[in-house]
Amino acid sequence: MDSTPAQVPEGEDLERRAAELHDAMLVVDGLQYSHWNRGVLEELRAGGLAAVHVTIAYHELARETLSRIGEWNRRYQVHADLIRPVREISDIRRARDEGRVGIFYGFQNCSPIEDDIDLVEIFRQLGVFVMQLTYNNQSLLGTGCYEEVDSGITRFGRQVIAEMNRVGMLVDMSHSAERSTLEAIELSRRPIVISHANPASFHPARRNKSDAVLRALAESGGLLGFSAYPFHLRGGSDCTLADYCDMIARTADLMGIEHIGIGTDLCQQQPAEVLTWMRNGRWARELDYGEGSAEQPDWPTQPDWFRNAADFPQLTRGLLAHGFSEDDIARIMGGNWYRILEDGTQPRSA
Amino acid sequence: MDSTPAQVPEGEDLERRAAELHDAMLVVDGLQYSHWNRGVLEELRAGGLAAVHVTIAYHELARETLSRIGEWNRRYQVHADLIRPVREISDIRRARDEGRVGIFYGFQNCSPIEDDIDLVEIFRQLGVFVMQLTYNNQSLLGTGCYEEVDSGITRFGRQVIAEMNRVGMLVDMSHSAERSTLEAIELSRRPIVISHANPASFHPARRNKSDAVLRALAESGGLLGFSAYPFHLRGGSDCTLADYCDMIARTADLMGIEHIGIGTDLCQQQPAEVLTWMRNGRWARELDYGEGSAEQPDWPTQPDWFRNAADFPQLTRGLLAHGFSEDDIARIMGGNWYRILEDGTQPRSA
Repeated sequence: MDSTPAQVPEGEDLERRAAELHDAMLVVDGLQYSHWNRGVLEELRAGGLAAVHVTIAYHELARETLSRIGEWNRRYQVHADLIRPVREISDIRRARDEGRVGIFYGFQNCSPIEDDIDLVEIFRQLGVFVMQLTYNNQSLLGTGCYEEVDSGITRFGRQVIAEMNRVGMLVDMSHSAERSTLEAIELSRRPIVISHANPASFHPARRNKSDAVLRALAESGGLLGFSAYPFHLRGGSDCTLADYCDMIARTADLMGIEHIGIGTDLCQQQPAEVLTWMRNGRWARELDYGEGSAEQPDWPTQPDWFRNAADFPQLTRGLLAHGFSEDDIARIMGGNWYRILEDGTQPRSA
Repeated sequence: MDSTPAQVPEGEDLERRAAELHDAMLVVDGLQYSHWNRGVLEELRAGGLAAVHVTIAYHELARETLSRIGEWNRRYQVHADLIRPVREISDIRRARDEGRVGIFYGFQNCSPIEDDIDLVEIFRQLGVFVMQLTYNNQSLLGTGCYEEVDSGITRFGRQVIAEMNRVGMLVDMSHSAERSTLEAIELSRRPIVISHANPASFHPARRNKSDAVLRALAESGGLLGFSAYPFHLRGGSDCTLADYCDMIARTADLMGIEHIGIGTDLCQQQPAEVLTWMRNGRWARELDYGEGSAEQPDWPTQPDWFRNAADFPQLTRGLLAHGFSEDDIARIMGGNWYRILEDGTQPRSA
């Protein structure tokens, strides 16, 4: 099966059904980290997104993270016609009704809370709904997926998971190592997410997840967001939409249709320095290439069916062409994200 | 007129009327900075307070201020039966209905925003409703009341006042110098407060305010909170309740009954080190005694009619004995604070 419209069997009818369905759904992207100029924000709206989980910290400490939030506050003023903050999850529906895109925050690392558990609640008050316990390295909470030894969740990590459960912040293990991930699933009293990764069975990247992890994630009520970052795709930038949708179908069989969503990992228009910051922070003297290499140090090229967020309707079309029901597509494209956000971010007593 | 119950002319009848009135009112203290152990919080409730403006920063930078907020978040858990956070002003009424005391935050200095105007909105999001532009010294925004030269509101100060107006944070000039205060009143597009000070005509302390300032404050719709800190009282610790209530009556004549409230400046059970921190922060090598002196470096003793917040009903009794109407007492004891908080902390477009 090919991904270009002309060769899809149902032709114009499929196009029309896909467009109608896409407009009717609540579409949520479970992770992006772009250079948020007006053009990129316009792509979000063109893609029909009701909400996007935006990364606001990789290695930033608390004070720096406040400035990242301050930058978003300025964007809400300057681009008030395009975006709005998601202060509570129902704001995602409000955003869609207003024809705007709701923005909610996440950390890809625990650096913003430094060594201070009180900062979990404070950042939750500021609208941070998701935090990865680790980026690629060992953190104060757990082990990242690039470490040689995975020692699991730390003493501080156990306390922070409990605190995140209490204040309503989703635990995200996208960049974590296997044992740490399984322990986080076990320790958390609320479902957790892997916001942006794919099954290792689809493509054996270090960032992709074993069936054991995906099964445990689903059994605990959690959610996997499928990445569209070329390093996570079979065939990289040449991966086809049909292959991508086939991966989704196989994962639905493994995990159940309630436990999957989209988390594209789109990084639009970021300069190479930002990639260097993500990979090296302040910890590396010797350059680390992360998922890249000395030969390919730069951003990979997006597949032609998903060049930017304006291509979101292509995913709906691909899923429809693959044979998913409309209800299941609505779950995958945002319904499941909405549910886990609504359930998982309500504060509750300890 | 004496302040002890037995000598008040109306006797038991006054006592009963004062107690009933006090229970029926929404009582707000416009400033306290105490050592917030359970005993002190119990005094707040015993005093019948619906809400207290608590100082959370004198010289703290942004990161340290987050820890002060974190400490309050812990107190809300530990003392959930006594206190609750005021996230929106209507929470003050909720607190009273629940038999708890609502807590809202203020800064006595602009140090928490450092040099970053974006931090105004971020701290507003975290529940900071009031900020003094200066403590006793020159700040980045204006001049404090202990400086020799008062150069008025700075370039940064003008921008910050406009930003506070936009996000809904009250400008407080309690510790500011005269010219800076008059300029802040003029520049602010929303009414401002002097949360804790008295008229200089009552007692000529450097922290008390001239009639010119008080008149301008009232004309712009602002509010003065009367201090019960002995250094601001005629006769210091020996000031009588009758004298205090007479000061209130004279100020009501000057400013109008709508423009006065209470801001006790109570600092309960704080060790001397905290006084040194307030007065010296990190700026002084040579010890500064602020309103004290080398001979009297410690906290002053509270007057016997206002030893702590549990004595709040005494103020109601004193005002009733002085001849204020019940409506006017309700305004002074909290109604005016409630109104200016409700009007002044709603965000509005720039």
